[in-house]
Amino acid sequence: LRNGYPEVIFCQGKSLEHINGIISKMLELGENNILATRASKEVYESVCKITDHAIYYDLARIIVIKRKEIIKTKKNILIMTGGTADIPVAEEAAVTAEVLGNSVERLYDVGVAGIHRLLARLDVICSANVIICVAGMEGALGSVVGGLVDVPVIAVPTSVGYGASFNGVAALLSMLNSCASGTSVVNIDNGFGAGYTASMINKLNGDD
Amino acid sequence: LRNGYPEVIFCQGKSLEHINGIISKMLELGENNILATRASKEVYESVCKITDHAIYYDLARIIVIKRKEIIKTKKNILIMTGGTADIPVAEEAAVTAEVLGNSVERLYDVGVAGIHRLLARLDVICSANVIICVAGMEGALGSVVGGLVDVPVIAVPTSVGYGASFNGVAALLSMLNSCASGTSVVNIDNGFGAGYTASMINKLNGDD
Amino acid sequence: LRNGYPEVIFCQGKSLEHINGIISKMLELGENNILATRASKEVYESVCKITDHAIYYDLARIIVIKRKEIIKTKKNILIMTGGTADIPVAEEAAVTAEVLGNSVERLYDVGVAGIHRLLARLDVICSANVIICVAGMEGALGSVVGGLVDVPVIAVPTSVGYGASFNGVAALLSMLNSCASGTSVVNIDNGFGAGYTASMINKLNGDD
Amino acid sequence: LRNGYPEVIFCQGKSLEHINGIISKMLELGENNILATRASKEVYESVCKITDHAIYYDLARIIVIKRKEIIKTKKNILIMTGGTADIPVAEEAAVTAEVLGNSVERLYDVGVAGIHRLLARLDVICSANVIICVAGMEGALGSVVGGLVDVPVIAVPTSVGYGASFNGVAALLSMLNSCASGTSVVNIDNGFGAGYTASMINKLNGDD
Amino acid sequence: LRNGYPEVIFCQGKSLEHINGIISKMLELGENNILATRASKEVYESVCKITDHAIYYDLARIIVIKRKEIIKTKKNILIMTGGTADIPVAEEAAVTAEVLGNSVERLYDVGVAGIHRLLARLDVICSANVIICVAGMEGALGSVVGGLVDVPVIAVPTSVGYGASFNGVAALLSMLNSCASGTSVVNIDNGFGAGYTASMINKLNGDD
Amino acid sequence: LRNGYPEVIFCQGKSLEHINGIISKMLELGENNILATRASKEVYESVCKITDHAIYYDLARIIVIKRKEIIKTKKNILIMTGGTADIPVAEEAAVTAEVLGNSVERLYDVGVAGIHRLLARLDVICSANVIICVAGMEGALGSVVGGLVDVPVIAVPTSVGYGASFNGVAALLSMLNSCASGTSVVNIDNGFGAGYTASMINKLNGDD
Amino acid sequence: LRNGYPEVIFCQGKSLEHINGIISKMLELGENNILATRASKEVYESVCKITDHAIYYDLARIIVIKRKEIIKTKKNILIMTGGTADIPVAEEAAVTAEVLGNSVERLYDVGVAGIHRLLARLDVICSANVIICVAGMEGALGSVVGGLVDVPVIAVPTSVGYGASFNGVAALLSMLNSCASGTSVVNIDNGFGAGYTASMINKLNGDD
Amino acid sequence: LRNGYPEVIFCQGKSLEHINGIISKMLELGENNILATRASKEVYESVCKITDHAIYYDLARIIVIKRKEIIKTKKNILIMTGGTADIPVAEEAAVTAEVLGNSVERLYDVGVAGIHRLLARLDVICSANVIICVAGMEGALGSVVGGLVDVPVIAVPTSVGYGASFNGVAALLSMLNSCASGTSVVNIDNGFGAGYTASMINKLNGDD
Ligand SMILES: Nc1ncnc2c1ncn2[C@@H]1O[C@H](COP(=O)(O)O)[C@@H](O)[C@H]1O
Ligand SMILES: Nc1ncnc2c1ncn2[C@@H]1O[C@H](COP(=O)(O)O)[C@@H](O)[C@H]1O
Ligand SMILES: Nc1ncnc2c1ncn2[C@@H]1O[C@H](COP(=O)(O)O)[C@@H](O)[C@H]1O
Ligand SMILES: Nc1ncnc2c1ncn2[C@@H]1O[C@H](COP(=O)(O)O)[C@@H](O)[C@H]1O
Ligand SMILES: [Mg+2]
Ligand SMILES: [Mg+2]
Ligand SMILES: [Mg+2]
Ligand SMILES: [Mg+2]
Ligand SMILES: [Mg+2]
Ligand SMILES: [Mg+2]
Ligand SMILES: [Mg+2]
Ligand SMILES: [Mg+2]
Repeated sequence: LRNGYPEVIFCQGKSLEHINGIISKMLELGENNILATRASKEVYESVCKITDHAIYYDLARIIVIKRKEIIKTKKNILIMTGGTADIPVAEEAAVTAEVLGNSVERLYDVGVAGIHRLLARLDVICSANVIICVAGMEGALGSVVGGLVDVPVIAVPTSVGYGASFNGVAALLSMLNSCASGTSVVNIDNGFGAGYTASMINKLNGDD
Repeated sequence: LRNGYPEVIFCQGKSLEHINGIISKMLELGENNILATRASKEVYESVCKITDHAIYYDLARIIVIKRKEIIKTKKNILIMTGGTADIPVAEEAAVTAEVLGNSVERLYDVGVAGIHRLLARLDVICSANVIICVAGMEGALGSVVGGLVDVPVIAVPTSVGYGASFNGVAALLSMLNSCASGTSVVNIDNGFGAGYTASMINKLNGDD
Repeated sequence: LRNGYPEVIFCQGKSLEHINGIISKMLELGENNILATRASKEVYESVCKITDHAIYYDLARIIVIKRKEIIKTKKNILIMTGGTADIPVAEEAAVTAEVLGNSVERLYDVGVAGIHRLLARLDVICSANVIICVAGMEGALGSVVGGLVDVPVIAVPTSVGYGASFNGVAALLSMLNSCASGTSVVNIDNGFGAGYTASMINKLNGDD
Repeated sequence: LRNGYPEVIFCQGKSLEHINGIISKMLELGENNILATRASKEVYESVCKITDHAIYYDLARIIVIKRKEIIKTKKNILIMTGGTADIPVAEEAAVTAEVLGNSVERLYDVGVAGIHRLLARLDVICSANVIICVAGMEGALGSVVGGLVDVPVIAVPTSVGYGASFNGVAALLSMLNSCASGTSVVNIDNGFGAGYTASMINKLNGDD
Repeated sequence: LRNGYPEVIFCQGKSLEHINGIISKMLELGENNILATRASKEVYESVCKITDHAIYYDLARIIVIKRKEIIKTKKNILIMTGGTADIPVAEEAAVTAEVLGNSVERLYDVGVAGIHRLLARLDVICSANVIICVAGMEGALGSVVGGLVDVPVIAVPTSVGYGASFNGVAALLSMLNSCASGTSVVNIDNGFGAGYTASMINKLNGDD
Repeated sequence: LRNGYPEVIFCQGKSLEHINGIISKMLELGENNILATRASKEVYESVCKITDHAIYYDLARIIVIKRKEIIKTKKNILIMTGGTADIPVAEEAAVTAEVLGNSVERLYDVGVAGIHRLLARLDVICSANVIICVAGMEGALGSVVGGLVDVPVIAVPTSVGYGASFNGVAALLSMLNSCASGTSVVNIDNGFGAGYTASMINKLNGDD
Repeated sequence: LRNGYPEVIFCQGKSLEHINGIISKMLELGENNILATRASKEVYESVCKITDHAIYYDLARIIVIKRKEIIKTKKNILIMTGGTADIPVAEEAAVTAEVLGNSVERLYDVGVAGIHRLLARLDVICSANVIICVAGMEGALGSVVGGLVDVPVIAVPTSVGYGASFNGVAALLSMLNSCASGTSVVNIDNGFGAGYTASMINKLNGDD
Repeated sequence: LRNGYPEVIFCQGKSLEHINGIISKMLELGENNILATRASKEVYESVCKITDHAIYYDLARIIVIKRKEIIKTKKNILIMTGGTADIPVAEEAAVTAEVLGNSVERLYDVGVAGIHRLLARLDVICSANVIICVAGMEGALGSVVGGLVDVPVIAVPTSVGYGASFNGVAALLSMLNSCASGTSVVNIDNGFGAGYTASMINKLNGDD
């Protein structure tokens, strides 16, 4: 079905043997690129035993095995974070979107408690085709950005925070209740899902 | 900013006087269409006193005051529900999307506990450009549909159910945990938000 | 102890007889002003039977019986809301603060999903001595305002919203996790508590 | 009472000495088979010191000490999982059911986000006498399968997932709200309970 | 598929017209018995306009339209309740099971806080083929009964109680954590689901 | 105030230095017995450096420094548990009650899923003056025992269990909803509190 | 078993016919006093049709049918409340304890936010044999009182409050976490349970 | 904007390199004091490599790099705790407030279960200008203190406790429901936020 799309494997909770088994089969059967998410450095080293083409994005915790040329879209997906602790989740989204063939712009650490930093970059924000807002704690980034633009916004709550952040629940609820139209939400810390959905949207109606 | 978009008013919790005041001002100032959501029949009757052009969609609980021609997209937004009790939320999404200029297809009562009814309509499902899945109780519709198609899916949990459905929380959690890539979620019962987001996505990259 | 402060009675859940009994005693014993919160119109009418000096603030659901001149502070408490549905809670705070002798400024319906409306009023925001931010749904107002000013901000979550707003829990959690320093929080819908606390702060160190 | 049934010991949270003590007594007193659940490799090695007949099922984390012949039922219990991470819980159910004398069929990694894999095995699904559906995350497997068959379905939510899966709560709620008649639910990760219940049902009315 | 099974309609949240429309079609198309659950007296009176054969079980809130002879199983389903307030849910299970062709025994108000009343009926309890335990508040009935018998037990938590019963959550959690093997659980107040599942189990392997 | 009562120190979360400092001061100032709860073996060894009279109850995780003779009550406190994993909490209650001068009887592993084991000991149960019921998982022990006796029952939920036991929440809710009159509840795993309260009750009205 | 104790019937959720049926049987069979809790005025009027001896305590919502002389204990149960809205629950406890033969003292509206009112009555507090603390909102009364006295304290959380009081959950959690030894807790609003338990404790060891 | 205020860095979840990078830039660019919160000893040692002026407050887990003289306010911020385990959070507040130029008074371990210790220090309590109440478990300290004084109280719930304290939720809810006017709340364990807010309030209207 998903012709041209990379093969994806979610490594968390799988043994090294199991992962290498799956990847070996992928390497044999198809010619698509391979994306291994939630991969530790240890997983990367293990995968290197069966292929020379694995690249490790450590912040994103993603391994990419590139076998096909990736042609980038003309229009951008913009990925924003509220704080620096949200960057790993943002990078998971960014690398996913890039491997899926999207041009990606990053705008990190522009949380709403310092709204001027965000407003100083209105040019970048308003030129994006799809926006991913990654934020923990009060998770208000999605609402502010969603109110500024007329393109789809995907909000990703993160488990960053402590106490009444309840491992991302505060941000999740905040984002689900956003008053800004055009915003939808994915699971806590689900950078991959956000990147994948944003790619689908960005490439709809022909910008491949 | 949102040039060409309809004006939107959320009626729930506002008095009849307040609503008529806001609509009167909208009627004077702009020329856009007007969409009043969460409007009871009583609100509709009150609005009729200040305009002859109000149309009431009772299932959707929406009043539309049409002042501009609506040109429909060529590509479809498909709106699906798990059960019949989910239809009001689905209609809120459908009418919103239509007023925003989208061609809308409806496929209701195709819940996953009777998967054959859903599979019997694969043609309709696979020809959609964007899909909205509306479901209460176990909320599994989004996952099944998301796995069948390669277009963006917006999942809307509804408060339909009893006991451990916790007014839509079961469906919400289920949808946030969907294993199908390309799915994002809006608030419980938020048909308007789903319709608006789907419209934004459907019209991206040029299908206006 | 609380010399000069008004007497306060919380009417919710008390019978008309009970309320009139308490107020009668207050009228006899002291000379302070009297503030009756969470008072319905019915309560007001009943109170009118025992005094001619009751004034009813219906939006705020507060009855004031003024017996002493109220001298206003020079510095302002600013009360802001995210939406129009938050106004009753904001008015409870406003009337409370006014009866306690504070100059009060109102800035309503400036939610973060339309950040320009808020930024257009930076002058008012930056000239306040204490700020109360009243918001439901995603409750992000407190964070944005807290980041703009260097005065204490009291955030009041409201039960406005539906679905995953969980009657104010989303806004409450959002506010508790605010990244803006100088923000503290009161109970959901507790306009009285916010007005009282703001007054205490505003009058500290001598601005009586 | 439970004549012919194996003796069962739940090892989690018990010391090696304690476990060996209990098993020694069981070995002396009865002649039934012995099933030790939630047993680590360390427990197995310790048990080997007191008996030569212990077999360790490591995926299932179960030790079986076989002392009586096990006669299998003619009819099958089918055990299905949504993903590969659900397999340990499924194996706990499978080994339990086998030791209790049931013929067991396995069908793993057939989650609803790839419904075609599930539908490709309708023959196996429709020939089962009782079905156990093991799934984490959105936990929709039980509903889809329950709608396809007319035999009892036992749904086992697993703690597999992250973020808003809340350690199995999302799957649990989803399963409790299943629209498919004939489905009942056991505790999160309770493979033993599912296997035991399925066995009781499978052997009812005479298929021993 | 479900040959011989009655047609089922869940009335809650459906309009009288809608219900009568569905039932009319059922009356035309098939010859099966019809079961309408969660039906108020008003629904019953409305249904009487289109058929003379509707019987109303008011405690169970079920309408039965009998068109085929019902042949009862030889073996019993026993339905037990903890208190008298649990009886409506128990009756929903009982009538469902009877219409599905099962012999049903009732044992009500035998909650665990008066264990002697339960133990006084051990004969009835031990002669059942399948047992349904309906209980609110602490929901312990399932565990006690499950420990006494070697047949499948289906536990139904009810929303009976107040305070920390949280509308059935206390009973639900209690039942999910039962230490008695062979117990599984359905949704809060889901008497229908329990009756249907019990029937499937009772008729397995040939007792039709 | 609490003349004759032992000094109590809660060790969890305190450093060895801190604990020894507090105990040294107690040893100097008073002559009462000393009870150190939630004490690890490491704490015990550290305490041994400052006194020769410390006795360690390892199951109960309690250190007792006896300096005064303890005279036991004539009437018993009975301490029961549902399973063997509940014993540490029960022992915390037992040692606390004993040091406070009570005669304590133990009846462990008599959970309600095996009601016969409990009923076999009715003599012991009915001769107690106060009963402490310690149970995790479904926590039904308190209800069954409370229904059998006419003396005060203190129920202690434990964090024993997994999945939907939610670290003792299921047992806590179950116990709070007990239908048996005369039962009250303490915090999850709070054996000390149960032992202390039981002692207070047991010694009321003169049995010292 | 419970010789001399009154018969108790819990009226909430029972029909007038059902209640009168139960009471009629009680009137015939025994000679004990009868206590009907959670009884509305309507229930009382209905009960008056079958007996002339019913007395209605409207604040407590209890009907008492006195058939035997009640001999009061010498020692007191003291019942305290934090606010005036907690009084109905306190009265349920008070009337229950009185009918069970206890001398009862009341001390209402002495919440911890006005600690001086509480401290002004130390004499009454310190002369009680058992204390019941009834409080909603922050529920701190139990801790303060428990720290002042050396007698058993039973804490009753009430559903009084709004917002984050969550219908008594805030008070319940607060009470379960009390640092004062000797305190135990009953269900939210369970005045009956507190009165019953307090009576059992008060009469232990001979003060009948 | 925040002229004269120290630079603040939140260390938790940041790498040593990252922290040193940020601090190096702060050291270059400005002349303000620097406050690094949630800093482990390891972080301190790493920071010592780039500056000789770092002072480590280990209880508070704060590093201060003092570059400007700190002039203390004449009026006090009083910081109180319920227990000794709350001291780290209190010290985070204390050091924060001191570095921000406030005179700070400490009053630790005066929890409400021993109200006499608190009342013995009424002089200190009543002479404070702003009060911070730090407490875990039942979190009642804020209410009692708030009722005694007429100055603003900031309540900080801590995660100290076990079982139904739910990592600070019990204290948080208790504090949000405080009946004492003038109290507001910050996030669980947020000593920094409390210290910062208290400083803002203490210095308002001119006491710099
Ligand atoms: N059914 C709905 N659910 C959530 N948000 C809505 C809904 N209908 C309208 N809105 C939003 O509410 C805004 C208008 O709110 P208001 O100004 O309060 O009438 C619109 O711009 C939409 O963003
Ligand atoms: N709207 C309100 N929300 C919360 N507390 C309130 C409110 N209005 C008044 N109060 C508090 O309630 C107290 C009076 O309570 P009462 O004695 O029950 O009338 C006042 O001193 C305030 O502390
Ligand atoms: N994995 C499991 N999960 C839940 N219950 C179990 C499990 N394994 C065994 N049991 C139950 O635990 C009982 C034995 O418990 P114990 O006496 O503590 O070893 C068995 O009779 C089963 O009912
Ligand atoms: N207000 C109350 N709250 C909780 N339990 C009660 C209450 N009043 C009576 N009960 C209990 O309910 C039992 C009677 O229940 P029932 O047989 O349903 O009328 C009594 O024996 C008490 O244990
Ligand atoms: Mg937008
Ligand atoms: Mg898809
Ligand atoms: Mg600020
Ligand atoms: Mg089925
Ligand atoms: Mg059994
Ligand atoms: Mg009893
Ligand atoms: Mg005490
Ligand atoms: Mg105060």
